[in-house]
Amino acid sequence: MKRVEASKVAALKAELVALLPVGCVKDDESSRETYGHDESDMGNFPSDLVVFATCAADVQAVFRACQQHGVPVTPVAARSGKSGGSLPLHGGIALSLERLNRIVALHPEDLTIDVEPGVITGEVMRAVEAVGLFYPPDPNSWEFCSIGGNIAENAGGPRALKYGVTRDYVLGMDWVLPSGELIRVGKRTIKGVAGYDLAALFVGSEGTLGVATQITLQLIPKPKKVLTALVIFRDVLSAARAVSAVLARGVLPRVLELLDDVSVKAVDGRGFNFPVGTGAALIIEVDGNVEEGLWVELNEASEVCNAHGAIETLMAQDESQREKLWAARRMVSTCLRQMKPFKISEDVVVPRSRIPQAIEAFKAMGQELSLTVATYGHAGDGNLHANILFDGLYERPKVDQALARMMRLTVDLGGTITGEHGVGYAKREFMALEQGEGVLNLQRSLKALFDPAGVMNPGKIFPSQ
Amino acid sequence: MKRVEASKVAALKAELVALLPVGCVKDDESSRETYGHDESDMGNFPSDLVVFATCAADVQAVFRACQQHGVPVTPVAARSGKSGGSLPLHGGIALSLERLNRIVALHPEDLTIDVEPGVITGEVMRAVEAVGLFYPPDPNSWEFCSIGGNIAENAGGPRALKYGVTRDYVLGMDWVLPSGELIRVGKRTIKGVAGYDLAALFVGSEGTLGVATQITLQLIPKPKKVLTALVIFRDVLSAARAVSAVLARGVLPRVLELLDDVSVKAVDGRGFNFPVGTGAALIIEVDGNVEEGLWVELNEASEVCNAHGAIETLMAQDESQREKLWAARRMVSTCLRQMKPFKISEDVVVPRSRIPQAIEAFKAMGQELSLTVATYGHAGDGNLHANILFDGLYERPKVDQALARMMRLTVDLGGTITGEHGVGYAKREFMALEQGEGVLNLQRSLKALFDPAGVMNPGKIFPSQ
Repeated sequence: MKRVEASKVAALKAELVALLPVGCVKDDESSRETYGHDESDMGNFPSDLVVFATCAADVQAVFRACQQHGVPVTPVAARSGKSGGSLPLHGGIALSLERLNRIVALHPEDLTIDVEPGVITGEVMRAVEAVGLFYPPDPNSWEFCSIGGNIAENAGGPRALKYGVTRDYVLGMDWVLPSGELIRVGKRTIKGVAGYDLAALFVGSEGTLGVATQITLQLIPKPKKVLTALVIFRDVLSAARAVSAVLARGVLPRVLELLDDVSVKAVDGRGFNFPVGTGAALIIEVDGNVEEGLWVELNEASEVCNAHGAIETLMAQDESQREKLWAARRMVSTCLRQMKPFKISEDVVVPRSRIPQAIEAFKAMGQELSLTVATYGHAGDGNLHANILFDGLYERPKVDQALARMMRLTVDLGGTITGEHGVGYAKREFMALEQGEGVLNLQRSLKALFDPAGVMNPGKIFPSQ
Repeated sequence: MKRVEASKVAALKAELVALLPVGCVKDDESSRETYGHDESDMGNFPSDLVVFATCAADVQAVFRACQQHGVPVTPVAARSGKSGGSLPLHGGIALSLERLNRIVALHPEDLTIDVEPGVITGEVMRAVEAVGLFYPPDPNSWEFCSIGGNIAENAGGPRALKYGVTRDYVLGMDWVLPSGELIRVGKRTIKGVAGYDLAALFVGSEGTLGVATQITLQLIPKPKKVLTALVIFRDVLSAARAVSAVLARGVLPRVLELLDDVSVKAVDGRGFNFPVGTGAALIIEVDGNVEEGLWVELNEASEVCNAHGAIETLMAQDESQREKLWAARRMVSTCLRQMKPFKISEDVVVPRSRIPQAIEAFKAMGQELSLTVATYGHAGDGNLHANILFDGLYERPKVDQALARMMRLTVDLGGTITGEHGVGYAKREFMALEQGEGVLNLQRSLKALFDPAGVMNPGKIFPSQ
């Protein structure tokens, strides 16, 4: 796709300035740069215009104009994405939804909330917890990512193990199609099977089939008690084997997170001291309404870990100890980044029984290629954040080789290349490893049905042909 | 759509007899009648041929031939559907998946199972419970419905309140498109966001976008303890109000079922005696791993009910008492059917806060039209089985009027016309009440993309134009 000509940009700008509220159309260099990158480290792709929508009608106007002029438009949320899904690769318009940021209505009796896409995920959590309710999806970036972005990528998080991912909580949406048509998909009730589940199709479509302008989220009662334990292992394979065993014993924790030796070393002593000899750790968290029962479950999980070689279990006795454990977990990404100048974080998923094999294979590959590989993350559901650390761009060819091998290994183990970050721009060339030509072509046909002009977030998800 | 000409049927029959194993193509009257009806009471629609698939290749051969000859094909599962989704309205082929009935592989360490679509749902439940695992979706017909049918209609059941519906457990599928192409959609892992979620789109597509020939289902650890209580109320509105209140108190039962006065009367004394003065009842069931904690939760739910006018709570003390309570609940449909010669059962859903209003409105409408209306079902998630009982077909015009008013009332309360039975043939003319022309047209375009010849289960879901 070649860049949009300057004259077309100027015409489009004039048209949108006339249609949208004052201050919603920008083309200064700083705005274009700012909205041209995300957390994927895939580079900077400045759009020609940055447009801020303030209501669904604004989105409709932008989409209509883009279809008409054949100008690319890329929806942008909080720019915390890890796969480059919001990068305006081919210029055109970066359409920010951040000003659509109202909590429209909380319905405690229905256990639902209506929000706009620009609302920060953490704000939703706090609003519903204030009335005893719970919004479970908890991407690591919950304090700055937005519901709209979570929907685009179908974001998960540690609590996905017990509670599922964003799609499981989206009941219905006001949705603007690439044509500019505004429709309501889904339902406002907990159940509902009338017609095709377009809401389920749109969640995770990474901004390629349109955007949500209002969302009805399902809530659940907030569990009254949470207990957290840190289980220490000598080596990562024992920890990995314990993961399946805990579930097989019948305990379904809300969180079952793994830290390998590199991750433990990275955070050790930074506010939290791991016992001497720690080679890996699991964070196990159970929740429910009755504390006595939770201790029984946590003890049972701990026993299973002991039978798999755990050397110590530290049970958080109060909220401050709990917070310390989590602080260690949350610092992993930051501390790993400090170990080496460059870091690439993947989010592959393997069937649970294959976790030890995957971790072993990634480690062996790292040794073979002389790269540091750190694996941590949501082991309970097989979702591993495998990180490659490296010293300089001169190592990039080797890193690319490692990434390709990691994806191949994952798919060979029955896994998927992305568990929660999305394919976006970063992983599109790996899609063919996992999905056959038939499925890819079917998805391309769907895309073409929704977006005949091919201007809606072009260059994402599908491998270049 | 006019019927297929006899010569075309004969040619198709000859073609399929040559392609499929012996005994897989039938055109005797008895087979055609048998596969021409379901549990919807919508009438009998014999197909021209009944074809039994024994593998994915058989399905592919049938679909290819139907596209080529322009002959309608309607997938048939266990014929336990309530919305006429499997009725071969326009003749052609009834394609039965019942011989694709193998449990292919159970993976206890991965907490997944691979099954064919003809496997009976109850068989899956028993197979996984034998190894301490749990498949939660429990449509009332679980002892004779099949996983393929559950997927077609996205079936729910009482346990959906805590555990969700069929879609929430379908990780991936081998899927034959209407063109005859076999693709694999979804994943084998718990998480995964690579590409559009075609599996989520296909679940609930009611046999209009193709069929599954193998399915990977997600399992969870089986809760070790279940406690059940029957809470007695004087009147249905008090019981309905208690439903939201239990959830608002922070208790999430796995089941929260309602029986109104008519339903209670229908089953009273048939193996279970309700206390004198019972005007409505709730069945509340909690599950988990630690019995002590469950008693605390059940007592809390009972207290909430008392505060809303409950007159008695009967806690099942053992499995036989529990079974008695459930036997009463399961008999409701049968006993209501015995009260009057004709019964139509709906499965509307309203937001939880509107349950009392919905029940009141249905009752008032019944009185106004001199029809007996019984409402029971999965009140915890707002999914109400509203039944209209009547004496003879002479009352049908009045019944149709009542149904139309019920659907309108439901939609006006923010609800949906179907929570778990599907739209099928029975409710397609009500779709426009709930969904705008834009959404309906988008779904029609999707259907046309998958099935350009329009032969895949024609006449379902969408209103006639």
